[in-house]
Amino acid sequence: MNKFMEIAKECAEHGVSHNEGGPFGAIIIDESGNIIAKGNNMVLASNDPTAHAEVTVIREACKKLGTYDLSGCTLYTSCEPCPMCLSAIIWANIKQVYYACTREDAGKIGFRDDIIYEYLEGKNKELIKLKQIDREGCIGLFNEYEKNNKVIY
Amino acid sequence: MNKFMEIAKECAEHGVSHNEGGPFGAIIIDESGNIIAKGNNMVLASNDPTAHAEVTVIREACKKLGTYDLSGCTLYTSCEPCPMCLSAIIWANIKQVYYACTREDAGKIGFRDDIIYEYLEGKNKELIKLKQIDREGCIGLFNEYEKNNKVIY
Repeated sequence: MNKFMEIAKECAEHGVSHNEGGPFGAIIIDESGNIIAKGNNMVLASNDPTAHAEVTVIREACKKLGTYDLSGCTLYTSCEPCPMCLSAIIWANIKQVYYACTREDAGKIGFRDDIIYEYLEGKNKELIKLKQIDREGCIGLFNEYEKNNKVIY
Repeated sequence: MNKFMEIAKECAEHGVSHNEGGPFGAIIIDESGNIIAKGNNMVLASNDPTAHAEVTVIREACKKLGTYDLSGCTLYTSCEPCPMCLSAIIWANIKQVYYACTREDAGKIGFRDDIIYEYLEGKNKELIKLKQIDREGCIGLFNEYEKNNKVIY
């Protein structure tokens, strides 16, 4: 077994044995193979539905490095990232991910990863209601931001 | 303009004027129309690439209510949620979202929302490299979790 995946698995085991959340662990390493941060699912312990293993380890790595940009880093996770986590990984500029279990494996034990993926592919449209209103009242926010050459990340 | 969207817009304005992040604001209200939490993009201020307005306001609302389950709540956001935020909203069990600007509007001022949506629809596959390894070494985590009737959220 890959040595970094072994550590991600240990993170998952730690989280479950401490009742912190689901059986998911992740680590981030830099280009030299140094471990920057380890994390596990903390949804139950922190009452935070966004505290999946990947989001937790990204937050931790960014805190340690003092940046929101993890370019050059690699993420190992014990399960295929859900769409929230995958998008978080992209926003963090991580380009390489290794995962072990699949979204279908997570689905089989009751997690909704595969349902959310299907929604984003255009199925299950009843999952959530989205309605657009007041664009004309808010678009000025974007025009102002662009005009002032503000940071894009 | 809808009174809740007006507040989401004010949150966005607050965030930009304090250099906390991009021009995005969001609020969460309960079934009676009470405001549970307000939030804005905090990526720059907190060096956290996951600190979009919607994620920030979900964390804040969960903290206030002491739960990871926001069933019955409604979210207003000044821009269409990116896939990370939309998935976070689904994980939080929020079923109704009102948004103002679109993913294309965000794309026009340089944000990657639309590119990530396209990736999840099966395009832009070069955006990130995902590789599966060691499933057989990690699947036991899921079997154990299921066997012990652990919490699914």
